[in-house]
This record gives sequence, C-alpha cells and structure tokens, in this order.
Amino acid sequence: MAKVKKAPRPKAQTPKGFRDYFGSEVSERAEMLRAIAGVYHRYGFEALESSAVETVEALGKFLPDVDRPNEGVFAWQDEDEGWVALRYDLTAPLARVYAQHRNDLPTPYRRYAMGPVWRNEKPGPGRFRQFYQCDADTVGTGSAAADAEICAMLSDTLEVVGIPRGDYLVRVNNRKVLDGVLDFVGIGSDDPIRADVMRTIDKFDKVGEEGVLELLTTGRRDASGAFIDGVGLHIQSAQQIVQYLTQKSVLYGEDVNQARLASMRQAVGNSQIGLEGVSELEEIASLLAAQGYGSDRIVVDSSVVRGLGYYTGPVFEAELTFEILDEKGRKRQFGSVAGGGRYDDLVKRFTGQAVPATGVSIGVDRLLAALREKGRIGGSVQGPVVVTVMDRDRMADYQTMVAELRNAGIRAEVYLGNPKNFGNQLKYADKRNSPVAVIEGGDEKANGVVQIKDLILGAKLAQEATLEEWKERPSQYEVPRGELVAKVKEILTQWA
Amino acid sequence: MAKVKKAPRPKAQTPKGFRDYFGSEVSERAEMLRAIAGVYHRYGFEALESSAVETVEALGKFLPDVDRPNEGVFAWQDEDEGWVALRYDLTAPLARVYAQHRNDLPTPYRRYAMGPVWRNEKPGPGRFRQFYQCDADTVGTGSAAADAEICAMLSDTLEVVGIPRGDYLVRVNNRKVLDGVLDFVGIGSDDPIRADVMRTIDKFDKVGEEGVLELLTTGRRDASGAFIDGVGLHIQSAQQIVQYLTQKSVLYGEDVNQARLASMRQAVGNSQIGLEGVSELEEIASLLAAQGYGSDRIVVDSSVVRGLGYYTGPVFEAELTFEILDEKGRKRQFGSVAGGGRYDDLVKRFTGQAVPATGVSIGVDRLLAALREKGRIGGSVQGPVVVTVMDRDRMADYQTMVAELRNAGIRAEVYLGNPKNFGNQLKYADKRNSPVAVIEGGDEKANGVVQIKDLILGAKLAQEATLEEWKERPSQYEVPRGELVAKVKEILTQWA
Repeated sequence: MAKVKKAPRPKAQTPKGFRDYFGSEVSERAEMLRAIAGVYHRYGFEALESSAVETVEALGKFLPDVDRPNEGVFAWQDEDEGWVALRYDLTAPLARVYAQHRNDLPTPYRRYAMGPVWRNEKPGPGRFRQFYQCDADTVGTGSAAADAEICAMLSDTLEVVGIPRGDYLVRVNNRKVLDGVLDFVGIGSDDPIRADVMRTIDKFDKVGEEGVLELLTTGRRDASGAFIDGVGLHIQSAQQIVQYLTQKSVLYGEDVNQARLASMRQAVGNSQIGLEGVSELEEIASLLAAQGYGSDRIVVDSSVVRGLGYYTGPVFEAELTFEILDEKGRKRQFGSVAGGGRYDDLVKRFTGQAVPATGVSIGVDRLLAALREKGRIGGSVQGPVVVTVMDRDRMADYQTMVAELRNAGIRAEVYLGNPKNFGNQLKYADKRNSPVAVIEGGDEKANGVVQIKDLILGAKLAQEATLEEWKERPSQYEVPRGELVAKVKEILTQWA
Repeated sequence: MAKVKKAPRPKAQTPKGFRDYFGSEVSERAEMLRAIAGVYHRYGFEALESSAVETVEALGKFLPDVDRPNEGVFAWQDEDEGWVALRYDLTAPLARVYAQHRNDLPTPYRRYAMGPVWRNEKPGPGRFRQFYQCDADTVGTGSAAADAEICAMLSDTLEVVGIPRGDYLVRVNNRKVLDGVLDFVGIGSDDPIRADVMRTIDKFDKVGEEGVLELLTTGRRDASGAFIDGVGLHIQSAQQIVQYLTQKSVLYGEDVNQARLASMRQAVGNSQIGLEGVSELEEIASLLAAQGYGSDRIVVDSSVVRGLGYYTGPVFEAELTFEILDEKGRKRQFGSVAGGGRYDDLVKRFTGQAVPATGVSIGVDRLLAALREKGRIGGSVQGPVVVTVMDRDRMADYQTMVAELRNAGIRAEVYLGNPKNFGNQLKYADKRNSPVAVIEGGDEKANGVVQIKDLILGAKLAQEATLEEWKERPSQYEVPRGELVAKVKEILTQWA
C-alpha cells in the first residue's frame, strides 16, 4: 500500500499586501478615530457602519482612478446573490445606504463612517490592500454651506488629533472652474482628450510647472529615462492652463483668497460653468471667513484637481505642510492626508433622482504616520507591572497581588511562563517594557514583605550611574506586603 | 439600428445576511469595545489587529461546528496567492500571527482583538453573516493560572460593561473530565460515536435531561414532530453521562465548587485523563477563590461542553442569568454571551511544535442586545441643536452661531436643506431629536436678539399642559444674541 502523504504545513503568512497591527499601533489608531468621531459628532454627523460586503452591482464602477467596472476590488460569486465584493471605499456604500433607507433618514443626512476598505491592487512599499478610511459626508443638499462646513470640520479635526495650525492647509478648488478654463481654451466637455488633460493636471505636485507644460504638449522624459507621450495641446492652450494652475504662487496673506478668486474669474472668461464654479468658491470662502477660518487654515487653490471622476463641484484636499525626509534623505512636504468634494450623481444610479452630496475622506494611516513623524504618538509605550513567580505553588499569592494592583487601576500581570529560571522572568519584563517588577520569595513571605524593582531607574543607572550614585539611589525597595500598591503607585507616578 | 438598452438601475440593498448599523448602534458598540479593551489592557493584554483576509491554507479547517475544510467561509481565488478568505473568527488568525511573529513576541503572549468576522452561512432572523467578536487569549503557557485569569477577566469585563453581579455566571468545565467520564462508561477516545455523544451533550440547555437521555439512546421526537435518531448508547451508560451533567442541580452556595469537584472525581473513576481534568479545575477554582471570585461569579459546571472540536482542556462560558421574554412572550434566560477554553494544537499546525493557548471570545452583538434588554443602553439619544435658516443670504450669521455653540462643546448644526418652508426645518429638528432650535429672522437681527425654542419642553407641554401651565412655562425664549450660548447651555443642562 502506498504511504499516506502528510499534508504539508501551512505557511504562517498574511496574503501579499496585507499586514497585522500590534499593540500601540492598534490603540493609537483607535484613539485617533475616537477623537475624530468626537469632532464629527459635535458637527451633528451621525455614525454609520455599513456592511463590508456589497453586491458588485451596488458598488458600480466608481472605483477611483479606474474606469472599468469591478477592476481593483476583491469580488467573488455568492450562492444566492451573484457577485459580491469587499467595499473599496466608504462613499459607494453611503450612496447605497442612502438610496435604501432614504425614507427613514433625515434630509439632509450628515453621516460619518470609519473602517477598513479593500483594494485589489498591486501592493508596494507602504501600500496595502486593506487600509482605514474615515469619512464624513452630507447627503441631500446642494448648498455651498455644506461644502464649507466639511472644510471647517476637516480643519478642526486635524487640530484635534494633534496637527498644529500652520502645519496643515485645507485647499479648496472647484471642478467647474477647471471645466471653465478648458472651455475657454477650446477643449469642450465632449472632447476625448479632456480626461487626459485632467489626469496630467493632477500630476502638478509631482512634476511641477515645466513637467505639466511638457506633458500637456509634446511629452516628457522622466527621471528613469522613460518617455511619456504628451497630450498634444497647442503650447498656448497649455500655457493658459498652467497659468491658471500656478495661481498657487500668489503669496499667502490677508487677501490671498480674494486675489485667487479674481484671477480665476479671469481664467474662465465667459464660460458659464466656470463662472458658476467661481461663485460657489466665493460663497465657501466667505462663509469660512465669517466663522474665523482664515487662509492660513483653508485656502482657495487652483491646483487641487483630485483624480476621482465623480466629483462635480467643489473639491478639497488637506495637506500637511511640514517637511520630512524621504527614504533617500531628501526634504519634502509630508503631503495630502485627506480629500473629498461634491459628487451629485452617486445616489442617482440607484434612484434615478439626482441627490446632491459632499464629503471628505481622511487617510487614517497617512495621518497616523504624520503624527508619528511629528513625535506626537509612537514613543515607547510602558508595559504592565510584572509580578514574578518565585514559588510555583504560591501562584494564588501572586494572582492576589495583581488583582490588588489592577483594582487600583494599575496595569499588571503575573508571569505565566515557566518560572524555573528567574532571569527569563526579568527578560520577559524587559521585553514587555515593564516599569516595575514585584518579587516575593520564601524569605519575603515569611517576613511579610515584598521586593519592588524600579526597572526604569534600574536601566538608567545601569547605563549612566557612577558607583556612588548607584549606592545612593537603589532601584530596588523592600516594603511591607500591605504597602505593595502604594509603593508601585509611587514609582509609576514618578515616571509618568 | 437596434436601440441601445439602458443598463437597469442597481438595487440599493445589502447582500442577504448583511446589514447596516446606524447612529447610536455604532457608537454604543464602540463605547462597549473601548470599555472591554480597558479591562483587557489592565490585565496586561496587548492589542492585535490582524488582516481581515487570510490564505485559506492558514485558516485551515477549524471553523467551529463544521468539519469540512473551508466550508462556511467567504473565499475567492487571488491572482498571486491562490485561495484566500475572510476570517471567520479571531482565533485562527491569532494562531497564524503567533506562528509568523513568534520570535518577536513575548512568551507568554497575551493579546486581545476586536473586529468583524464573516461566516458564509444561511442567514436567519437575528443571524448575520458579518458580526463582531472581541477576544482575549494567552499563548505559550499551559498554566492553569492563565485559564483562571481569563475567567476572572471575563467576570470583570461583564461588570464593567454594565452587567451587575448576580446577573451573570461564568461557568467552567474541562473537556478532559468529560473524556474521563466517557472512558469510564466505555466509550474510548477512538470510538466513532464519541463525536455524536459530544454534540448531543452540547444540546443539554435546549432539550434538558430527558431529551439528552433520549438522544443518547433511542432517539427523540422534537416539538415540530420530526424524529431525531438516537446515538444508540445503552441506557445505563446514558444515565451515567446524564448524572455527570446534572451536577448542575447541586445548589449554589459556599461550597458548590468543592461539591461539584468531588462529584466529578467520582464520575471519572480511574480514568487518567479524567483525573487530570479534575485537578486542573481544582487549581483554577482555588486560584479564583484566592482572588475573591466566589461561585456567585465563576462556577465549576459539568454541563458546559462548547461545540468546538479544538478545545483540549478547560472550557468556559459566560451566561446571563436574568430572564427575558422570547418572541412568543415566554420567559427564558438570556443565555450565553461569551465562551472559550484551552486549545493546545492550533499553532502546531504551522510550526510542528505544540504551543499551549487559552482564551475567550465575547459575542459583542449578543452582549449589546443584553444591555439593551436591561435598559442600560439604547434609550432615545439627544440630537444636535439646530440653528434654523430664516434668511438664506445670512448663512454666514447662522454658521457663526453653530461655530460658537460647537466651540462651547455643544453639538450643533445649521439646517442645510431648502430653507423656504420653515415647518420643514422644525420637522427636521424633530426627526433629529433636537433639544433646541435657534431662530434669528430679520426682526431679531435688527433688535440684536435670537429666539431659542426648548423643543423637549415644547413637546411635553403639547402633550400634557393645561392652558394655564402653557402660559406660565413658555418654551420659547428671546435672549440677546450675545447670550445665545449661555441660554442654550442652560436648557441643555436642565434636560441632561
């Protein structure tokens, strides 16, 4: 008889492009989401958690930057439902939810949502196939006040999570203005190259003025030496577009919004849609000014395009303006952490009726990375107090100690590994970043005392202290058993 | 030319078995998870968030209650990875994470995890294909102290989220004891009917003593009239098993654990594995007693089986003992909200080395339902203050008011719908459950005042008040514009 082959062991690995998050990575994100939810709630937004799985039909073909249906999503065929897929963002599900529940929801409906989304894309360094988004949207109103509110809320949110004023800028543009500019230079809305022009403009931050000019006209050789074809515009049209984009260079100051709006008005000439866009921006700017949001926080900026096909009016982007060093050690601005805009056609897919909507999506992981970069989070996190096990048979005594510590609100645990080697217990405490270890051997038990080791001071002394200091500042204390909690508290307070 | 058919509109619907969560459903769950995380953290557990997607290979065939591989999960074929699937619980991913990162993790590794899991099962009333779990596990120690700690933590957790002592019971058993009993009655561990016996025993809570006796022997006709085949045990063996299970009937009191342990020792006779199981339970009970957890909170109970094939030692279940009315108006106990146990073989699949582990999983949605049942959460939630729009051109004024209110920490919003019909604005405030509406028309603006409507009092008066009371207690106040925030605060405090 043939030998039965054993099944090979499974590989202990996440699928490519997925990752796990440990300890403070998880709790820092939870803390940040809670802070953001607090701001959203104060603005009157209601929480919504839609299902992670949607019918492919409901998701539609609105995946950002992808024009084909269902490209880029994780989809499978369900027995009853036909094709279903994991949501790729939180906006497409909102459109479905609003269409489904519109009779029960207030109008306008302000909602926020936070959670993972999934993209079936090629993973890369720092580019994962599951990541968090945190969105706020107002559905059912075309009022520019709703757009202004989203911008104000975004500004408040960034400050609440720990990005100080001056380190960020919410930039606002309007797709209609760009449409107006293109109309004015003779690229009509039916012109097939219009989409190419949009995509090129969206690269402004990457390739700069010169690069965009080249890409709009005859093409460009990039850093790697590869040649990228141009869109083929006449140089004059391209210059008009770039001139519009580079209003950016107007100096920041008291009247920057006014100056930029005036220059936009010029750039759209007599285009109806363009003039409409400028008016909307004017209204947004004046509402924000009335509430005290100056152009140091929220500013009109013609270079904001946003890749998404579905935006129909105002578009926003929150950019962090402080510099970081990139992987090659070069300084660069941290860049975008949130974006959004007005999309008036998403619900219409379901109901046939246009439902105006506007919203913003915060890239949670990018924002966390920024806070780490600024040193706001991610320092070394203190572990629990570790009660060591000197006598295996007295586990109940040690458990009683941790129970006392926990009841006093102190994070604490008993060492649960094999207690035979005491060194291993201290190594464990070290790996857990424990501030304090508690020791009660037979002698201590007999004398009614415990030994308390200040591990932080111990580590400091081991590194820096002279023999004198070592003697003067012992890092281990013997206290009566009844004073365990008080002494541990004293040590922890000192290092808090 | 044939007419181009328009694509039909997509249906605005979640896939079957999935649902959306709105407003306080979301925030109450978030609050509960935060409270649970607080307890877990205090016990020294570290957060872990593993990816939602795993390779099918890594998930294995450990889906509870299903013996075939990959049955019951949502799986699809990835271009690079072969088959991948959504996690169906948080334990299988933990085994994968521990195997993958074991060199970087402390041993023992205490971790908690919370998040949605997905089951490809037939949905039913209250039975969804996506739901939340909240787990805590200790990997890398076989110590009964780890099991005891999980039970203590579970007890603390239930009290922290709002289940008072006396309304819950953590019941502890040991699979080895049951194995011992079966050994003792002559059903060896290789006997193919053993699994059937286990499954039958797990139905004890549903069918009772008589039912289990019937099912273990000749079979039983259920309430619907259908006949369920029996396992075919001899009546004497079945009685021995049922006698072991019904130790449950020992009265609660000072020595219930001691009495039950003694009776278990009898029931396993000379079975080695059985005696081992009883010793482990004794150790757990004595550790818990030392920490002050009496049998009113955590109790040895031979009727706990847990369906999962992978448990190898102690098993736990948290049961809510208060009564609710079922859909037919009959009283019944609320039942199980959490369960777990020791599983020593999960990591071995990956590494070949046995890694002992123990843990618990809280059914978050069940626990939320219990809190709602007890009236601890889910009351009517106050909405935001609504600033109405009397004059469309003065949106900036209204926005300034909400900005002031928000800066004072008050949840507030401007009405963003079409302001033409003032009645609609008040209907909106009503739908939002707003406590206060603010009104500033042209006259008010000219006189430097605002009208503040106490909507809660207004609703009360409309329902109950006599004309006298109505006159005496106006529900609308005119105050100077500068006193807007103070007056709103005063009203809110009154209704807090």
